[in-house]
Amino acid sequence: MQTSHQDVRGGSSASLFVDLYEMTMLHAYRECGMNGVAAFDLFVRTLPPERNFLIACGVNCLLDQLENLAFSDRDIGYLSTLGLFPQEFLENLRSFRFTGDIFALEEGTPFFANEPILEVIAPIGEAQIIETLVLNQVGLQTLLASKAARVVEAAKGRPVVDFGGRRAQGLDAAIKGARAFFIAGISATSNLEAGRQYGIPVVGTMAHSFIEACATEIEAFSSFATVFPTTTLLVDTYDTLEGVSRVVDLARELGPDCKIHGIRLDSGDLVSLSQQARSILDGAGLHHLQIFVSGGLNESEISRLLAADVPIDAFGVGTDMSVSMDLPAFDIAYKIVEYEGVGRMKFSPRKRTLPGRKQVFRHYAGGMAESDVIARLDSRQSEGTALLKPVMLGGHRLGPSPPISDIKNRTSRMLSELPRALRTVAPAMTPYPVIIDEELQDYEREIAARVATL
Amino acid sequence: MQTSHQDVRGGSSASLFVDLYEMTMLHAYRECGMNGVAAFDLFVRTLPPERNFLIACGVNCLLDQLENLAFSDRDIGYLSTLGLFPQEFLENLRSFRFTGDIFALEEGTPFFANEPILEVIAPIGEAQIIETLVLNQVGLQTLLASKAARVVEAAKGRPVVDFGGRRAQGLDAAIKGARAFFIAGISATSNLEAGRQYGIPVVGTMAHSFIEACATEIEAFSSFATVFPTTTLLVDTYDTLEGVSRVVDLARELGPDCKIHGIRLDSGDLVSLSQQARSILDGAGLHHLQIFVSGGLNESEISRLLAADVPIDAFGVGTDMSVSMDLPAFDIAYKIVEYEGVGRMKFSPRKRTLPGRKQVFRHYAGGMAESDVIARLDSRQSEGTALLKPVMLGGHRLGPSPPISDIKNRTSRMLSELPRALRTVAPAMTPYPVIIDEELQDYEREIAARVATL
Repeated sequence: MQTSHQDVRGGSSASLFVDLYEMTMLHAYRECGMNGVAAFDLFVRTLPPERNFLIACGVNCLLDQLENLAFSDRDIGYLSTLGLFPQEFLENLRSFRFTGDIFALEEGTPFFANEPILEVIAPIGEAQIIETLVLNQVGLQTLLASKAARVVEAAKGRPVVDFGGRRAQGLDAAIKGARAFFIAGISATSNLEAGRQYGIPVVGTMAHSFIEACATEIEAFSSFATVFPTTTLLVDTYDTLEGVSRVVDLARELGPDCKIHGIRLDSGDLVSLSQQARSILDGAGLHHLQIFVSGGLNESEISRLLAADVPIDAFGVGTDMSVSMDLPAFDIAYKIVEYEGVGRMKFSPRKRTLPGRKQVFRHYAGGMAESDVIARLDSRQSEGTALLKPVMLGGHRLGPSPPISDIKNRTSRMLSELPRALRTVAPAMTPYPVIIDEELQDYEREIAARVATL
Repeated sequence: MQTSHQDVRGGSSASLFVDLYEMTMLHAYRECGMNGVAAFDLFVRTLPPERNFLIACGVNCLLDQLENLAFSDRDIGYLSTLGLFPQEFLENLRSFRFTGDIFALEEGTPFFANEPILEVIAPIGEAQIIETLVLNQVGLQTLLASKAARVVEAAKGRPVVDFGGRRAQGLDAAIKGARAFFIAGISATSNLEAGRQYGIPVVGTMAHSFIEACATEIEAFSSFATVFPTTTLLVDTYDTLEGVSRVVDLARELGPDCKIHGIRLDSGDLVSLSQQARSILDGAGLHHLQIFVSGGLNESEISRLLAADVPIDAFGVGTDMSVSMDLPAFDIAYKIVEYEGVGRMKFSPRKRTLPGRKQVFRHYAGGMAESDVIARLDSRQSEGTALLKPVMLGGHRLGPSPPISDIKNRTSRMLSELPRALRTVAPAMTPYPVIIDEELQDYEREIAARVATL
């Protein structure tokens, strides 16, 4: 039952969310006496053509996971079955804790290619063993926040709600996705677990199945509005415009007691249906009833609808946002950049890594970001705002996660400081300037020359 | 700390993995006295052009979740904060259990558009509240198994291992994905948690970081092979062919004690590098060293490599398979088809649902599947093999989950019974015939006519 119960809770031990090679390397580092401090950078190698910027997200969740990382008896019992590790190594795992430092972009910070989202400074085995967890978890929320910002941009101030839990790739993606969406500007989620865990507002209307199970559509509307007077009624089960007329009938019947919030369209030609529905509602004096649309929406479709000047008050967005359909993964990497104070790099084609510890400086003019500089940590470069900040020292986070509304507000402010040309659904004509500081370029050449002699 | 610890365990309550509207409908059904039995079908509306078939996967995991579904004090405490539900409803949730029946395709069964992956028969509120969980969980593993089968097909018998946990969309996708990949024919995973939870073989080599942290590449190889004599050495950190030569040097030094399993190439032109590497190894008499490749692989790239007749022994596949890159979501739906013995359907454009309970019959000739018939449950149609089987009655599963190796073997057999023309990476010229039985078509017309009068 232990396994079953784990499954029910969507559950997995983050401590064993490790690729086998990280565990074998941990053992090999110890056997080789390599206990020095390493620096690893998490970054995206190239900005995908589908994105004008990315949004750092998920670091606070990762810090919780790292603070609580520990191998249970069950974990160690499993590892012993592999026949790869001596008993002494397995016993030592019992006292394993992550004791490193982490410097990171604040959640919600827009960033670009090659800029570290975070730097991990820790004994090399510790920095190595968290590799898969860091990539997966910060990658997920960064991917999804970056997608949602586009949907929010397209909606031009109209509320967008997350309906995607059912199509997200698993429970973790749905729940942490709702968090990332909210941070990126979404108003609410339909997912109760995300609401509970992160304090995100939850919303919902009704499903076609409720209407189909009732004897008639009008009975379904009437029953539901009796139980939930401020509901939004779903009108496209049989004939959308007849459905709207039935909402009008119900509103007339309820008279001044009518508190119905609005209607939802979930299929068909949303341009003409929303216009005709608005016309029917207005004709009945129901100007205050909102029109909410859903069904296959994404940033392009929302842009198309709004370009047609549709009377739509809010959008429900699911699948496309939840799996980041146009960009379901990106080239996020977690790479060693320094060991025992010396920069490290590899020469694998198209996989070069900037060596050494770094800082990212954002330069502003008139309150607007105009360029970033990636520099060595101890660089003379000191103008601009340093974006990488300490968030964990010695394995302890420097403070609790900020309230999610604060993260959301800061994200909104940081997005508003990006050049307007980047905040578009279409690809930006001119990329945002990211400069590799000369000292860092010199250092890269120096390390490359050193490595070439190995 | 409760929340943090939950997070660490990748953790989420499956019972609150519910869209708000399912909870409000559960309440409304009760308030309206609608306690009748409903049937809901899980199915894919159209076979995506990227897939010649899909593979049912994840049902056994879902059954575990449904058997253990229960609302905790914490869940109910959260729901009460929403101010939407009366205390009596919330109190009743404490005793909520899923008590329904489920009929499903066996895991690993190839299926096509409109064929139910499973049917849920339960009091309508119970069938409704599991909607998001069913869609998300069976959808995830079905999506990923269907993708992995293509990768396995492309590899033409060479082992494929799952390296994708780092790029999967979250912990749940990575771990259940490894399960789905294994069922679909993958040999092993790098993810230890998936290995522990599902008994999947785990594999791993070494990372570039190990090599970069060591003073020299040869020292790294030598150290690692001392700790893990049967290792696979990663040769592309600096210069791939020099890396191969260093493996040869190490093998010569170790002499007859050399147990090195092989080398891994992770970048560059894998055709010419694998050929040159093979030539270097063979030239040194190391014919038994295997060549393992990874880095940006998918079914197309593997097909391209094998078409070039490369000397590659095994493939590590990550990102593309883990997010089902070419098809990150599909049009999977969970729809009411019957309530209180009467078929139900909606008329929303392109969203018609076949009403009533069903069975899928697969017809074979000479041991090969040649067509499917979707029929009414009580149909006279009785030839062929009935694919939907009872797996849960009254909320209790009919048996434990079969060993994963049995599911994998059955999957392999069922795939081998599909027409050869479907088992290709390219789109099949002729789709597999799926016939809607005439009685079911008549019933659809009958229900449509009835609904049109509502």
